[in-house]
Amino acid sequence: MYVDLGNALSSVASPGVSRASLERLDEDVAAAHERIERGRANDEHGYAALNLPETADPDAITATVEPVADAEALVIVGIGGSALGAATLADALDSDVETHVLDNVDPEHTNDLLEGLPLADTAINVVSRSGTTAETLANFLVVREAFEDAGVDWTERTVVTTGEAGPLRDLADTHDLPVLKVPDGVPGRFSVLSTVGLAAAAIRGDDVEALLAGGRDVARNLSGSLFESPAYAYGATTYALDNRGASINAMLPYAEGLETYAEWYAQLWAESLGKDGLGQTPVRALGATDQHSQLQLYRAGPRNTMVTFVRPRERADRTIPETDVEGLSYLGDATLGELLDAEFEATEASLAAAGRPNVRVELDRVDERGLGQLLYGMEAACVLAGELHGVDTFVQPAVEWGKNAARGLLGAEGEYPEADAVEDKEQLLVE
Amino acid sequence: MYVDLGNALSSVASPGVSRASLERLDEDVAAAHERIERGRANDEHGYAALNLPETADPDAITATVEPVADAEALVIVGIGGSALGAATLADALDSDVETHVLDNVDPEHTNDLLEGLPLADTAINVVSRSGTTAETLANFLVVREAFEDAGVDWTERTVVTTGEAGPLRDLADTHDLPVLKVPDGVPGRFSVLSTVGLAAAAIRGDDVEALLAGGRDVARNLSGSLFESPAYAYGATTYALDNRGASINAMLPYAEGLETYAEWYAQLWAESLGKDGLGQTPVRALGATDQHSQLQLYRAGPRNTMVTFVRPRERADRTIPETDVEGLSYLGDATLGELLDAEFEATEASLAAAGRPNVRVELDRVDERGLGQLLYGMEAACVLAGELHGVDTFVQPAVEWGKNAARGLLGAEGEYPEADAVEDKEQLLVE
Repeated sequence: MYVDLGNALSSVASPGVSRASLERLDEDVAAAHERIERGRANDEHGYAALNLPETADPDAITATVEPVADAEALVIVGIGGSALGAATLADALDSDVETHVLDNVDPEHTNDLLEGLPLADTAINVVSRSGTTAETLANFLVVREAFEDAGVDWTERTVVTTGEAGPLRDLADTHDLPVLKVPDGVPGRFSVLSTVGLAAAAIRGDDVEALLAGGRDVARNLSGSLFESPAYAYGATTYALDNRGASINAMLPYAEGLETYAEWYAQLWAESLGKDGLGQTPVRALGATDQHSQLQLYRAGPRNTMVTFVRPRERADRTIPETDVEGLSYLGDATLGELLDAEFEATEASLAAAGRPNVRVELDRVDERGLGQLLYGMEAACVLAGELHGVDTFVQPAVEWGKNAARGLLGAEGEYPEADAVEDKEQLLVE
Repeated sequence: MYVDLGNALSSVASPGVSRASLERLDEDVAAAHERIERGRANDEHGYAALNLPETADPDAITATVEPVADAEALVIVGIGGSALGAATLADALDSDVETHVLDNVDPEHTNDLLEGLPLADTAINVVSRSGTTAETLANFLVVREAFEDAGVDWTERTVVTTGEAGPLRDLADTHDLPVLKVPDGVPGRFSVLSTVGLAAAAIRGDDVEALLAGGRDVARNLSGSLFESPAYAYGATTYALDNRGASINAMLPYAEGLETYAEWYAQLWAESLGKDGLGQTPVRALGATDQHSQLQLYRAGPRNTMVTFVRPRERADRTIPETDVEGLSYLGDATLGELLDAEFEATEASLAAAGRPNVRVELDRVDERGLGQLLYGMEAACVLAGELHGVDTFVQPAVEWGKNAARGLLGAEGEYPEADAVEDKEQLLVE
């Protein structure tokens, strides 16, 4: 992973950060790095996620999913951190296994998906640490029924990823299903390099060991200085820019396969840093497409936004054919990849010329190694930013209220006073 | 379309707007409405888009696409406003025609797509008003070559949507292709209800007339008061909340089929209002999925965000099977739709309980009529917000710089000094 901070400097952009400020900030980075290292050494909650490239066991994962390794199709049943990591890998890496993610409870979508699947050759990976997530369990019950209706033994096609105990663990025990344990101390949004993200990758035939090796590449470079660690360089710069007014961070990868990565990043950033009235708002985008959608705002709107560019340095390419269309002959000398790179560099320069801060993150390639670097790098960047902000990076207390209200509305056992607030909604209806 | 402003009131949220402020604002709405009506009456640039439900000709569109109406698959080749409208309709409406959108120039993605298509039964709709958009033309040249390589006559499978003149028009004339004209005065992001969005809908067999009828439903209600027009109620409230600190607007539809709609909305909002240092930043999201991703931030982060909820009042449903999983039996009495609705209402109440402003937009159903209402309604809301902010809603000058830089980098004929800035990039590389 390569991180170029040039266009985040105050000599280029406003808001921007001076080299002198970055050097002062580097003392805080050193202190934060010590706390992070201590947390990792003690396998503390959250920090333990940064040890996954060493602690995850790719052979055990591969062996556990072996009964469904012949699958033509795969359905990942999970939501939030239990789905986004696996979905990110599936979107970025080629596989012969057609992969679907059931991470919502829209009945129309679920019906359409189940109708189109070759169920007898479909694997299911159901993922929930607690084993109680309403959306995931509801979807799993529906999927299970579809298998039964089709006369396919769902117990032969299902791999469970869950915690030590809970309803899903009980169900796996009852039906003797293969189970992978969600490791302790790893919040969902930091779990892509654990059983949570890697089970699906193993079923798809991705190179799980290379994903972990990518994580190790970046872990090795974590040090007490942002100038020596790409991950910390990114985390510290976003922290500095946020403090200087960049309350929005647009993630703009220039590779179709990284579209879901931008979603994954948005969850990582929003849930980890969005607390105590703090938190930079992540916006997911895609280059070059969103140049034609959001660039006007980022270049000419409020000075409240930084843009994070991501691109691979190498990719498979395709020549643009010669053309008889007048005025476009210059395209006929180029490849699609050259066009995309020209758009990347032009857009980056366009923001810099308008004094809008941006950071360039590059990978060698969008492959297992490169993804492992990117995902681990962003996790480490996020943990550092959380330390610098002084927030509790690894909790998400604000989502509990809504979960309780939903349980109450659905008539779950227990007291859910939150559900009453739904009845009392203030109305001002225009129709 | 129904718009409920209750949770945007200052009695509920901060930032929030008082009823008295809304009443004062209504005088500005009346004045803005007069300007809008004048613009529409004169078919002025941009305002003309609000006349499309009356001026578009569904029969002519259907007749023009007739040669490819038998297609098994459809590839829409366009980018930005030339693709997002058609993509929004394709994502939301069921069709037997497998639909793909080639709106990026990533070679790996393009290669994968072309390999998987039944080319002999595939229709192409290439869309560019100017006929010079580099990404679109490059992709079209690549697609054309793939047809030739497969021995399929691409001239039999292609429908062109473009302006009165330009390279794409010339190409259509040379090869005698069916052409639909992009109407004058309609910027790309306001073009979904024109030939730009409707050609693909017609090829897919969507009910084009019902889409336009939905637009007319909302157009009929445009009036000099936000309290009488759902579209204006939404536009005026976002304006008031933006002025009061909600610089971010998270679009959160609770329907999988509306995921691309949120992208379409983001373009509409960002390109129309992001200028002169103004502009609310649209964030695209999806319920219930993103409750597990972004809700923590929206509830507990900075008070700089409003959330726009969208849902259909009716949808196809599916019962959640009875379960042997302990603690989840309450799900067995419900449907997936009830679960999704409970999540919707719980999340909305959760934000209100935390004093975070949000607006509820409802449709009867996600069908042609409902979509026509929603898309037209958001366009009218955007035009109103532009009038209230006093910006030039229908231009996008900030994207020109980057286009010129890209042309220069690719060696197009002419002078492109912008390309030199790319060479001069400031660097601070951490690796």
